[in-house]
Amino acid sequence: MKITKPTLLIDEQKARKNIELMVSKARANGSILRPHFKTHQSAEVAEWFREAGIERATVSSVDMAMYFAKAGWKNLTIAFPYNPLEAAAIEELASQIELNVTMVSPDALDHLNAHVNASLGYYIKIDVGTHRTGMVPENIEAIKCASKSKNPSHHLKGLLVHAGHSYQPLNVENAQNIFVHSMHRLGEVKDQLQLPELSISYGDTPTCSLLSEFPGVDELRPGNFVFYDTIQEYFGSCKLDQIAVCLACPVVAIHPERNEVVIYGGAVHLSKDFIAKGSDKEFGKVVALDDLGWNPEPLAILRKLSQEHGIISGSSEFINSLKIGDLVGILPVHSCLTADLQPYYVSLDGRKIDKFNKALI
Amino acid sequence: MKITKPTLLIDEQKARKNIELMVSKARANGSILRPHFKTHQSAEVAEWFREAGIERATVSSVDMAMYFAKAGWKNLTIAFPYNPLEAAAIEELASQIELNVTMVSPDALDHLNAHVNASLGYYIKIDVGTHRTGMVPENIEAIKCASKSKNPSHHLKGLLVHAGHSYQPLNVENAQNIFVHSMHRLGEVKDQLQLPELSISYGDTPTCSLLSEFPGVDELRPGNFVFYDTIQEYFGSCKLDQIAVCLACPVVAIHPERNEVVIYGGAVHLSKDFIAKGSDKEFGKVVALDDLGWNPEPLAILRKLSQEHGIISGSSEFINSLKIGDLVGILPVHSCLTADLQPYYVSLDGRKIDKFNKALI
Repeated sequence: MKITKPTLLIDEQKARKNIELMVSKARANGSILRPHFKTHQSAEVAEWFREAGIERATVSSVDMAMYFAKAGWKNLTIAFPYNPLEAAAIEELASQIELNVTMVSPDALDHLNAHVNASLGYYIKIDVGTHRTGMVPENIEAIKCASKSKNPSHHLKGLLVHAGHSYQPLNVENAQNIFVHSMHRLGEVKDQLQLPELSISYGDTPTCSLLSEFPGVDELRPGNFVFYDTIQEYFGSCKLDQIAVCLACPVVAIHPERNEVVIYGGAVHLSKDFIAKGSDKEFGKVVALDDLGWNPEPLAILRKLSQEHGIISGSSEFINSLKIGDLVGILPVHSCLTADLQPYYVSLDGRKIDKFNKALI
Repeated sequence: MKITKPTLLIDEQKARKNIELMVSKARANGSILRPHFKTHQSAEVAEWFREAGIERATVSSVDMAMYFAKAGWKNLTIAFPYNPLEAAAIEELASQIELNVTMVSPDALDHLNAHVNASLGYYIKIDVGTHRTGMVPENIEAIKCASKSKNPSHHLKGLLVHAGHSYQPLNVENAQNIFVHSMHRLGEVKDQLQLPELSISYGDTPTCSLLSEFPGVDELRPGNFVFYDTIQEYFGSCKLDQIAVCLACPVVAIHPERNEVVIYGGAVHLSKDFIAKGSDKEFGKVVALDDLGWNPEPLAILRKLSQEHGIISGSSEFINSLKIGDLVGILPVHSCLTADLQPYYVSLDGRKIDKFNKALI
């Protein structure tokens, strides 16, 4: 298809390479890879995982679980706190596939026990220092309550952790320290529960990208790595040439007097996430599109975003090389949010790749 | 319909009141109101405008113009710089309705003249100080070129301005100063073009909300005012009780030890836009939902957002008043971006209100 408006291109080869690398790493570690599909949200991209031997996945909402269940995924974990208001949808889903849900309080388990009858597994989310949600190890009495299901259909599978404090510029040593500390906290919980057989589900792209060994981890749940993005590159999780998505955007105005270019490509295509560098904001890196996809070498920076406009700042040489109607590529700051905003993707050979869409549920 | 997940409620009465107020203001001023539909993106909400006497509208993309054209809107302005790559779609659209496009350079006009044959109007966008895009008045030679269509089907209608530098905390005096300065710059351009009959199309919600008189303006194009939001309240454009949309979100975790509550409602529902207050970020104001909609009195603040999670900070009294499975309301920071993320709206009486969706084009 001909690109005439902001369109997220996927380099399938790069995405498959990112998948294979993580699959090999998990295999070498003896862990199950249960990738988080909230990044790509696409049944077709999910097939690339299946072809690499993956049969279990993670999602972040009940709606997304329903979408992937329809696409033939029979074993899913919803790694978002159990929402009592969706008990009926969870009941329905759990009767169709092997479903795991996530508990962050005894109250949540009580609600699940009382309102869902289908058989399902559950994880207790442990807060190892991110303080977004989850139960802190100090609160062991509450964790014990949440470990004791009163409904025989609901089985405690293990402890689930998302070390969100790994989302910062890291090197291997820092990442290792966060990992060791997190595993130590999980070990304390396991000991106190006296349930040594509990599975440990661990996941975040920085840790899974930077480290090679994950002793004690039964299951890895990274998601972003399939596409990566410029904030992961900034964190040290990937190189720019591993980023597998790029937003193709038409140039609509050129302002050589201030070395700026306006593209059709705004907050509704990229999201408002940015990398703060001092007082400067970076909403994406500008790259040249070519017949093979794009050249990952950044040429300029996307400095401002409004609803549909993007403002690129660059050298006069770069600005003067462009004319209106050209397409430039934007490597996104946060590929999960950029992907979420797309109605579909386009492959490098111009094929439409369908994805989950809230409007179609 | 029963609300089980993040859902954007519209208070139709408030939206209609916001519409009526702006319609009266434009009428008293002798200006045409051509509201920007990029905020609501909904054929049904557009009908509320039609019932208030509005027949012309503004949109921000060709796709959105096609959506509203299908819904019976016969006179639309695309207030986004002409995108040469969409010439064919513009041609098709211009053959169906009265269409106006926006030119920001002589090159854009040359392209339009050469690639589109259907009859249409165009505006020249003048940059009066925002420096996002548009032609600066100093560049009068280029503006003259852009005023001279070489294709007899393309008619220069007027000058279009968006005083984006009004998007800051303002009082009536500041707003008046920006308005007077902008109109002065437009007057200079008109004089130099020697085209006194050119229409002046002016639009932004802060100016249109704060001022009552718009001497010299032929057409007003505000958009956000239909819903307003907390950043417009922060700017001084509205009161909290004029905000006509509110995201209903399920409570999924409570952390009394740090006075936080986790809601199902994240960046994919609200957008990452925030109000910066010192080092604090505000992603929305938390309000209580009730049978009449919501009480606009803020109870707490939405402090952090990730893909699906929102973190509310509040008093211990507020935090302790909640349990998981409750619904809270979030008044959004930027209703245009929040609305863009919705698959549909829900009215206060539980009816689904359809909207434009990129996946359905």
